[in-house]
Amino acid sequence: MKGLVFNGPGKKAWTEVPDPAITDPRDAIIRIDAVTICGTDLHILGGDVPAVQPGRILGHEAVGTVVDVGSAVAGLKRGDHVLASCISACGVCRYCRQGSYGQCLRGGGWILGHRVDGVQAQYARLPFADLSTYQLPAGITDEAAVLLADILPTSYEVGVLNGHIQPADTVAIVGAGPIGLAAIIGAKMFSPSHIIAIDKAESRLQAAKQFGADLTVKPGDDPLEIVRSVTGGLGADVVIEAVGVPETFELCTSLVRPGGHVANIGVHGRPATLHLEDLWIRNVTITTGLVDTYSTPTLLAMLSAGQIDVHNMVTHRFALDDIIEAYDVFARAAETGALKVVLTR
Amino acid sequence: MKGLVFNGPGKKAWTEVPDPAITDPRDAIIRIDAVTICGTDLHILGGDVPAVQPGRILGHEAVGTVVDVGSAVAGLKRGDHVLASCISACGVCRYCRQGSYGQCLRGGGWILGHRVDGVQAQYARLPFADLSTYQLPAGITDEAAVLLADILPTSYEVGVLNGHIQPADTVAIVGAGPIGLAAIIGAKMFSPSHIIAIDKAESRLQAAKQFGADLTVKPGDDPLEIVRSVTGGLGADVVIEAVGVPETFELCTSLVRPGGHVANIGVHGRPATLHLEDLWIRNVTITTGLVDTYSTPTLLAMLSAGQIDVHNMVTHRFALDDIIEAYDVFARAAETGALKVVLTR
Amino acid sequence: MKGLVFNGPGKKAWTEVPDPAITDPRDAIIRIDAVTICGTDLHILGGDVPAVQPGRILGHEAVGTVVDVGSAVAGLKRGDHVLASCISACGVCRYCRQGSYGQCLRGGGWILGHRVDGVQAQYARLPFADLSTYQLPAGITDEAAVLLADILPTSYEVGVLNGHIQPADTVAIVGAGPIGLAAIIGAKMFSPSHIIAIDKAESRLQAAKQFGADLTVKPGDDPLEIVRSVTGGLGADVVIEAVGVPETFELCTSLVRPGGHVANIGVHGRPATLHLEDLWIRNVTITTGLVDTYSTPTLLAMLSAGQIDVHNMVTHRFALDDIIEAYDVFARAAETGALKVVLTR
Amino acid sequence: MKGLVFNGPGKKAWTEVPDPAITDPRDAIIRIDAVTICGTDLHILGGDVPAVQPGRILGHEAVGTVVDVGSAVAGLKRGDHVLASCISACGVCRYCRQGSYGQCLRGGGWILGHRVDGVQAQYARLPFADLSTYQLPAGITDEAAVLLADILPTSYEVGVLNGHIQPADTVAIVGAGPIGLAAIIGAKMFSPSHIIAIDKAESRLQAAKQFGADLTVKPGDDPLEIVRSVTGGLGADVVIEAVGVPETFELCTSLVRPGGHVANIGVHGRPATLHLEDLWIRNVTITTGLVDTYSTPTLLAMLSAGQIDVHNMVTHRFALDDIIEAYDVFARAAETGALKVVLTR
Repeated sequence: MKGLVFNGPGKKAWTEVPDPAITDPRDAIIRIDAVTICGTDLHILGGDVPAVQPGRILGHEAVGTVVDVGSAVAGLKRGDHVLASCISACGVCRYCRQGSYGQCLRGGGWILGHRVDGVQAQYARLPFADLSTYQLPAGITDEAAVLLADILPTSYEVGVLNGHIQPADTVAIVGAGPIGLAAIIGAKMFSPSHIIAIDKAESRLQAAKQFGADLTVKPGDDPLEIVRSVTGGLGADVVIEAVGVPETFELCTSLVRPGGHVANIGVHGRPATLHLEDLWIRNVTITTGLVDTYSTPTLLAMLSAGQIDVHNMVTHRFALDDIIEAYDVFARAAETGALKVVLTR
Repeated sequence: MKGLVFNGPGKKAWTEVPDPAITDPRDAIIRIDAVTICGTDLHILGGDVPAVQPGRILGHEAVGTVVDVGSAVAGLKRGDHVLASCISACGVCRYCRQGSYGQCLRGGGWILGHRVDGVQAQYARLPFADLSTYQLPAGITDEAAVLLADILPTSYEVGVLNGHIQPADTVAIVGAGPIGLAAIIGAKMFSPSHIIAIDKAESRLQAAKQFGADLTVKPGDDPLEIVRSVTGGLGADVVIEAVGVPETFELCTSLVRPGGHVANIGVHGRPATLHLEDLWIRNVTITTGLVDTYSTPTLLAMLSAGQIDVHNMVTHRFALDDIIEAYDVFARAAETGALKVVLTR
Repeated sequence: MKGLVFNGPGKKAWTEVPDPAITDPRDAIIRIDAVTICGTDLHILGGDVPAVQPGRILGHEAVGTVVDVGSAVAGLKRGDHVLASCISACGVCRYCRQGSYGQCLRGGGWILGHRVDGVQAQYARLPFADLSTYQLPAGITDEAAVLLADILPTSYEVGVLNGHIQPADTVAIVGAGPIGLAAIIGAKMFSPSHIIAIDKAESRLQAAKQFGADLTVKPGDDPLEIVRSVTGGLGADVVIEAVGVPETFELCTSLVRPGGHVANIGVHGRPATLHLEDLWIRNVTITTGLVDTYSTPTLLAMLSAGQIDVHNMVTHRFALDDIIEAYDVFARAAETGALKVVLTR
Repeated sequence: MKGLVFNGPGKKAWTEVPDPAITDPRDAIIRIDAVTICGTDLHILGGDVPAVQPGRILGHEAVGTVVDVGSAVAGLKRGDHVLASCISACGVCRYCRQGSYGQCLRGGGWILGHRVDGVQAQYARLPFADLSTYQLPAGITDEAAVLLADILPTSYEVGVLNGHIQPADTVAIVGAGPIGLAAIIGAKMFSPSHIIAIDKAESRLQAAKQFGADLTVKPGDDPLEIVRSVTGGLGADVVIEAVGVPETFELCTSLVRPGGHVANIGVHGRPATLHLEDLWIRNVTITTGLVDTYSTPTLLAMLSAGQIDVHNMVTHRFALDDIIEAYDVFARAAETGALKVVLTR
């Protein structure tokens, strides 16, 4: 079969590789029907994730059809159409028992396209298949479903739920890239009164408005003043960090009201400054998190019921064989306007 | 009457001042029966709290007897023996309605000995008296009760409850001064399996053992290694910061397990470094807070039921007229071994 | 002035009564601008609420303009346009400190039109005015605002929040009268996937559809079968009782899934049978409650932001002088189709 | 091997049966080292649990040593010393994913000694072994550990945690048999101020005092009056039902304060009367539940740390071969004073 192989920093190839095979009774093999590319894949290619060894097939977000299952797989059979989650779960360790699959202690967590071969390929092996895949109900497109492999549960769990958004809240979202936009979708499920999107790119702010933000602000236009103006001077109830650099995190902690929440989704490579000299007295809660995907069944049900509209999230579509071009379009998002790119068989 | 007057940085006097009087129908006047000194009072004297103007009577922790009440005070009458809380509450604003009295928007919060005259005096005016005082049940000593004015609710709410301590948890407490020791008292209410106290002073670690810590560690003795050794390598479920400098806060964020809580109690004067490059993926929750005193009724009930033993917390006792000496002993705690000093009429 | 006076079971009159006056420094007097009639008022007239003495002015839901305030009222002044809540709160007792105003121990709770004169009059005295009234933002009509005095917070707190409705839930609401319809409005704030309304009156089921129910069922049409068919056989996540007779409550406990919630809003006059022989093993949570009105600020913010549409809730409008006719229309709701009737000055 | 076989109502035998064998790759076989008898076993023998077919080996609480594991069992190996929980968990279904193992939809839940052969035998097959067993740390006796198979997690989850016991609470426990006594052990972990045990047997009330109740009451001695006298007239914060008949449940709902919790642990065979005419206005929460065993790791850690003392819970000890006699002693508890009887190899 063919797969997208990481050949060391800066190097990748869509090339012939061995077919995957069951290596543990809990494995399943799927044929990939749809797959997408994550910002994390670009980080890997940039050499920022040393755990990824040359030769590794990348990718951790897919929809596929089961072609083989191990002897201990109870809930899947050949022909099942499934979502392959970015997180694999042993189901037995302390964290998995609490639904915190991302922190799995016995070989799960984020492993696809990272510690084992991933799903940007024609076929893939999925470890712990019972807990790491989700049956897709009829009537959901592969293109919509594949967004539930990572980006939607990530923004929902780590942003919206960790942030404890409540009806009537004012929510500020710093960063209006794909994750920030997905956070808008999730935030709206709890009926906040205001969603304020903050980003330096006008095009992303336009997208934020389409997705449901009622106010958009550029960093230079004094977001603190604008947030205060709609909150009686107090600050936002919930602030979601969806960029991953120190400056945006620090902006978040300045925007939150006393008693409010800052929910960090961004993947950070450097430390930030925490202004405890201001914050110690303000009763704030700051959370971080890798997605656990415990919310995937909820999001699938909502997608199935027509409550989540991800139509505008996919900006570019490719055949799987054109994955090199797809990477190029996704990597040049500022130029191409790419949000999510989807590749199909 | 006499009061302890702040005369600008470094200067204080126990001197004759006018008697307090009712200035709002919600005020009460109390005669001070017992009062204590807070680390914050030392910060004020050091000039670190510019909001405190020369001429201000200091002090925000007292037990007293009501001598006069305003026309709108419904729950107090002359002769009532009450706890005067460090936090005053209007009871009407958004924050007070949620029990977050420390964040009161209409003139309450921490005001005693800060924005209005305090309780290190023979008499004091207590604004919003109905919500800012607590009737003392019979059988509680003034010395024990006065510790419920600030230190016990602070460590309980901002440390123990914000940290969500649960049975079987491993709790690390960084700083074994009075606040850290009070956090041990509070932590034990939720039956953690391990309480690890970390401090550089051997005498404070000895005190921590007396209060219930089962492990004590000096910063040089690799607390991370010790915390990991008792938690199967994971880290502490809850870490409480009870010092207030960047180094101790940063130690806390290194000690917490994935999915755990860091509860900051320390009063910080400088920013800290937040290692988001490590923490973003670890599902941690970091909280800060000024005490709200919503837990005061709970703590009073437990003191009354004999469930809280604060006997070892008070190390020195003085007559109110000897307050200058009491300040001296408290300020030289490293030498004198002072935890809390109590002054009585 | 004129007021609607209860003259014993079955007897009421719109008649001349003395003007109200401040009797406690925490009182306010308002001129009534809009008022409505509650099902409870009909119960009082039916003689079911013995605490209501002849001579009592009825009514506990109003919007008005402040004409006088007591000396201890801090947040109101003459001319303020306010919502007069059905619940009064002392703000000091154990329950008020936790926002559970409906259970006030010191003279508050549901007192208007019950233990003190109410608001179906030209003027009314409001005890504990600071905590029992809410400033109305500009741009809200009196007709919409008056629905926040009782029916909306009741259905929201006692039905929606007690029921812990979550995104993707299936919610069954038994009873599609005004309270049940208001519960639909509140339920939608949390994005359930299905709202199933159950009522025996076709007209109320039509209204339920208008308000957002996606399935409507008559009791004879096997609601259990229908609920199971949309929940994979499990039952509803949340069931809200909005009638108040044993049969409907018992239906609710049969509809809930293992691990689900039954939230009772109905006012009951008789005991119900609790089938513990089935329920003991099913991990259900059953809640009851009088409204506390802690959610009033949230609901006001949402009304102000255009997030709550109560337009269809008010079916009949009258001048205050025509209150006897309004009572008649409201009492004959089955014939008149009345949901809420609003009377204005 | 030998096993305790149910031969229809009233009939049991300790008799030769076939050795168990692996029938699913997720099974394990253990040699039974310690086992106990549950009140439920008596119900089965009484014919009250029709799902149990003649020929079934009874028993669902054991400690054993692993002698064989299926190919898909990842966390167990021969020789491991394990707790065999009363609840088996598939780990994959909706309920298992939320830790609600007792409600497992795919073949787990309470199955041992019920739908499959149980553990009152020399050997037993444990389905879903990875999620249904717990490695026993060194230093725990089999006799203590076996109490964590059912009675301790049941009383802790369904009574203590569902009841939301908080520090300073007044907790009333109706029924001081083994489950009620275990609830006292669990309640104390959250530092309530009062634990009131109510039972008609003086011997059980004496046991309740030993386990930590500070007040004991017989039903005839007006428990309502006594509960009110220690709670300022309000009622208990939390009431735990640990009997399982309508009268005791109804007593519980009369003892709870407004805003309090009634947590039902009792196994009921008949409906109870729910006095909604009183309760609708009182903001009460009533919960039911079968144990899920999500708390087993917590309880094991506490047992291991010496925080749980179950020494007084085991009143009689037998060799496994004497199980018929053990049943007799346990069945005549009123005479024999039996709490839990433990049988060992």
